Amino acid sequence: MTEDFRAMHGLYLEDLKTGMSAQFGKTVGEADIQAFAGVSGDTNPIHLHQGFAATSRFGQRIAHGMLSASFISTVVGTKLPGPGSIYISQSLNFKAPVKIGDTVTAVCTIVDIDAAKRRVRLATECRVGTTVVLDGEAVILVPRRPA
Amino acid sequence: MTEDFRAMHGLYLEDLKTGMSAQFGKTVGEADIQAFAGVSGDTNPIHLHQGFAATSRFGQRIAHGMLSASFISTVVGTKLPGPGSIYISQSLNFKAPVKIGDTVTAVCTIVDIDAAKRRVRLATECRVGTTVVLDGEAVILVPRRPA
Amino acid sequence: MTEDFRAMHGLYLEDLKTGMSAQFGKTVGEADIQAFAGVSGDTNPIHLHQGFAATSRFGQRIAHGMLSASFISTVVGTKLPGPGSIYISQSLNFKAPVKIGDTVTAVCTIVDIDAAKRRVRLATECRVGTTVVLDGEAVILVPRRPA
Amino acid sequence: MTEDFRAMHGLYLEDLKTGMSAQFGKTVGEADIQAFAGVSGDTNPIHLHQGFAATSRFGQRIAHGMLSASFISTVVGTKLPGPGSIYISQSLNFKAPVKIGDTVTAVCTIVDIDAAKRRVRLATECRVGTTVVLDGEAVILVPRRPA
Repeated sequence: MTEDFRAMHGLYLEDLKTGMSAQFGKTVGEADIQAFAGVSGDTNPIHLHQGFAATSRFGQRIAHGMLSASFISTVVGTKLPGPGSIYISQSLNFKAPVKIGDTVTAVCTIVDIDAAKRRVRLATECRVGTTVVLDGEAVILVPRRPA
Repeated sequence: MTEDFRAMHGLYLEDLKTGMSAQFGKTVGEADIQAFAGVSGDTNPIHLHQGFAATSRFGQRIAHGMLSASFISTVVGTKLPGPGSIYISQSLNFKAPVKIGDTVTAVCTIVDIDAAKRRVRLATECRVGTTVVLDGEAVILVPRRPA
Repeated sequence: MTEDFRAMHGLYLEDLKTGMSAQFGKTVGEADIQAFAGVSGDTNPIHLHQGFAATSRFGQRIAHGMLSASFISTVVGTKLPGPGSIYISQSLNFKAPVKIGDTVTAVCTIVDIDAAKRRVRLATECRVGTTVVLDGEAVILVPRRPA
Repeated sequence: MTEDFRAMHGLYLEDLKTGMSAQFGKTVGEADIQAFAGVSGDTNPIHLHQGFAATSRFGQRIAHGMLSASFISTVVGTKLPGPGSIYISQSLNFKAPVKIGDTVTAVCTIVDIDAAKRRVRLATECRVGTTVVLDGEAVILVPRRPA
């Protein structure tokens, strides 16, 4: 007998409707920025060096834009539609900086379902309070529920 | 006397030409996937759970697509154009999975420079060997060299 | 066809001149100290234990000296001369403590080039503001540009 | 009443003799190299990128030299003389590469004690098996035992 991991699977195509929405986010601390720099290799001093950042247009260290983008991937990969779906594409428009201590919330909302192709389109947005810091669109391939 | 961090600045608009290219990459180990899951919160079992992953279409755990995307951000933020530039947008098309132990190389190449708007467009690609696993385009705002 | 990684190579001997300089640094947060303690095993309470550190001559937790030293290695290994060069030796004189929240900048400057032996000598210094916290000298073996 | 942390203090000048020795080391895994790259910012592809490393003189990824150096600091800061001593200087001669999976042992041995100046000199060496991969000398300022 083998283990059965179907209970870990996320939503199936049949479970989805336009307008469904899910969120993930976290308060971005200095340790998150250091960890993201470590795993990505992005050591840009705007993220890591207070002296350089103070002379920049932002006046202080800011988080990596791809850290906020990764929170969108977290919604897609863990909630809507969740495990078992396949990421096809993502567009990202960086609108405003995220500062150390800001709380970022990624919100994903289904805007279109192409049932024949099993492709789902989501509006994807990251917010700090009511400010949109990142927006764009995701396309996800979603499996049908097994018979 | 204040410190001078101009030596940390990357390339300026005047330094850039169409066709210029830069690379960053790394061998993606299990520790990278765990670190990325930790900082992003993307705990999708396709990345973390061998049992679930073995039953998936990939047959094994794969890296987060956004980890490869972050290597593009590393090229932009540390090399071409480097510190001082502003990320405007990025499109991402996920083409093939990255498996544990694969070496991913992000390659960014300038395809267009709008000098009036100071906007630079880069073709952005991640490769494992000769397979393109991710492609897309970045738009970056680049400062002019100070007088 | 094999991949070509020459674009990842740093500067060659022919590219170097006495007086050339490069920098790397970061703001040293609590998470950096914990990460450095973890990977190095240096769990000295002067770095990790606020109670012990408060009774020390420094009056507070300080960063590992080898963390600052590692920023010198970052300049050498990623910027001047960068990938492809070989670290021969490094001397380190610890001059002043680095406190949590301090921004450390490592500055490396070429002081001598022995072209026959392909050996380059750099003055290496870490600063917090205008205070030198660490100085010393690096010797690096640098390859000639391939024909 | 305040807490008493004297039990955390290491050896005092009166405890030390020429010839005393202590060791620390660890097996250097891929995760150590990734963590060290993260905290130091040293993303040199010789450490992180299997493709680039395969074309290098080492033929494979190697650990950061400063990671081995940090194990010397671990001996000094936690064992000989341990907490309460002050790192004055360290010289480092990098003799041979450390590969992923190698077990590095740092060995520190007291070679001279200047009791008037409270300065202790240690021969410091890192070994993989019987190969010396790093050697040099440390100078440490050691407090006298409180009356």
